Amino acid sequence: MSRTALVIGIGAGDPSHVTLGAVDAMRAADALFVLEKATASSLTAMRQALVDRHAPGVRVVLVPDPPRDRSAEHGASQPDGAYAANVSSWHDARAAALAAAIVEHVPEGGSAGFLVWGDPSLYDSTLRVLDRVSAVIPLAPKVIPGITSVQALTAAHAILLNRVGEPIHITTGRRLHEDDGRNTVVMLDADCTFRETARPDDHVYWGAYLGTPDEILLDGAVGEVGELIARTRAEAREKHGWIMDVYLLRRP
Amino acid sequence: MSRTALVIGIGAGDPSHVTLGAVDAMRAADALFVLEKATASSLTAMRQALVDRHAPGVRVVLVPDPPRDRSAEHGASQPDGAYAANVSSWHDARAAALAAAIVEHVPEGGSAGFLVWGDPSLYDSTLRVLDRVSAVIPLAPKVIPGITSVQALTAAHAILLNRVGEPIHITTGRRLHEDDGRNTVVMLDADCTFRETARPDDHVYWGAYLGTPDEILLDGAVGEVGELIARTRAEAREKHGWIMDVYLLRRP
Ligand SMILES: C[S@@+](CC[C@H](N)C(=O)[O-])C[C@H]1O[C@@H](n2cnc3c(N)ncnc32)[C@H](O)[C@@H]1O
Ligand SMILES: C[S@@+](CC[C@H](N)C(=O)[O-])C[C@H]1O[C@@H](n2cnc3c(N)ncnc32)[C@H](O)[C@@H]1O
Repeated sequence: MSRTALVIGIGAGDPSHVTLGAVDAMRAADALFVLEKATASSLTAMRQALVDRHAPGVRVVLVPDPPRDRSAEHGASQPDGAYAANVSSWHDARAAALAAAIVEHVPEGGSAGFLVWGDPSLYDSTLRVLDRVSAVIPLAPKVIPGITSVQALTAAHAILLNRVGEPIHITTGRRLHEDDGRNTVVMLDADCTFRETARPDDHVYWGAYLGTPDEILLDGAVGEVGELIARTRAEAREKHGWIMDVYLLRRP
Repeated sequence: MSRTALVIGIGAGDPSHVTLGAVDAMRAADALFVLEKATASSLTAMRQALVDRHAPGVRVVLVPDPPRDRSAEHGASQPDGAYAANVSSWHDARAAALAAAIVEHVPEGGSAGFLVWGDPSLYDSTLRVLDRVSAVIPLAPKVIPGITSVQALTAAHAILLNRVGEPIHITTGRRLHEDDGRNTVVMLDADCTFRETARPDDHVYWGAYLGTPDEILLDGAVGEVGELIARTRAEAREKHGWIMDVYLLRRP
């Protein structure tokens, strides 16, 4: 009897963005697992608050990442093959740790819940990690979608994601310079990269800590608000110790 | 005292995709408005079922579209200016009809709820319509995001929307030929346009009637499942009288 992995999107910070299905799944799980990266502790607190409210009896298991061979990660001196092997064995160690935790806390035929920030389909590694775990123990994934930070952004600004009938691009700060910049959402950008790529009259809709009490919204022509956004971001990051922000660029 | 327009995303068919915030907003509204296009009546039924379940006392007002000047729409003989003027006066008529309905059913200072399929940010006209309405009566929009059909698709297939660290494109059937086809979600496509644009070994993840009891899922290499998808789509459309489908194309 195989176990089920409930991969539960919990939204990107606003407790009212949680779906009825996510609540049911949290309650139905035999235990809830959180893959711990070096995430801000306030995120962990928000996650715990959701569990306390919706699934108070269910145990939350933090699965710390196994130590990574850091010499491998930055080692330009190392041959590519060795680097790849190191990363791969780190992933295997992570999968083994998770499989052990699941076997410990979830009976055969039961459900392991995984709480995922936003939606599990968007720049998240949980599904890939579980794919590796299922090479160790049988595990059938079931995904419960969640509201993404992109939707939290467009809702907060009360805007459309697309221009009339036109395409939408979603990319990362690192890849933004490859994009045409007509209508592009940018995630995972620590550098306000739009200041390098956008034209002064492109409109930027920016949001940080979306859905949380610390939410900040700014928008305007890049030429007018670009530096203000960069400054606001730097100050907020300093103040809170961490930041998550996302923005939409739109060419007139 | 201005009225609030609660623009409520209700998900794309699965009742468990409704958020806690959407439930609260449905209940808080003085009346719920549905902008009627020539949508399938089963969609109207699904929407009504949500209201019956979550906000049983709240009145649902169907606002039919004013008649459109059809000669204008297909009139190649007509000068462009006249066409644009016709479309614009149709939009104005629509806004006026809606403003009148809101004034009739929602007291000043109250809330008019708008039930929107999926998420209000994604290829939906409600926010644009309300923008016109607010030229007639004061109206402050508040958007409650909903799970999109794109997320229903990725959840059903238990896949990521993005390839590792790479961009995501979302486009329409009409615009697909302009896309690079590396990793692209296609909506609003009545013609299975991927059969013209994709390579035989591109992977297609397809879903129709997602989240409903009639859900159909297919995936595989375009060269292997492309015709099967087109045939399945045609047969389902014939059987149900309507279809909504969406797919993700991914180049290996
Ligand atoms: C690893 S990705 C995860 C995205 C997540 N799965 C989702 O659906 O939104 C993290 C990025 O999401 C964005 N993000 C997530 N939560 C956010 C929030 N509450 N406010 C602003 N941006 C957020 C930021 O761009 C951040 O760099
Ligand atoms: C006008 S758009 C509205 C999209 C909606 N706002 C959303 O967030 O999904 C309609 C398109 O959405 C997709 N769609 C909506 N609901 C769907 C469903 N239940 N199953 C498959 N596709 C769906 C189809 O591509 C359809 O042509």
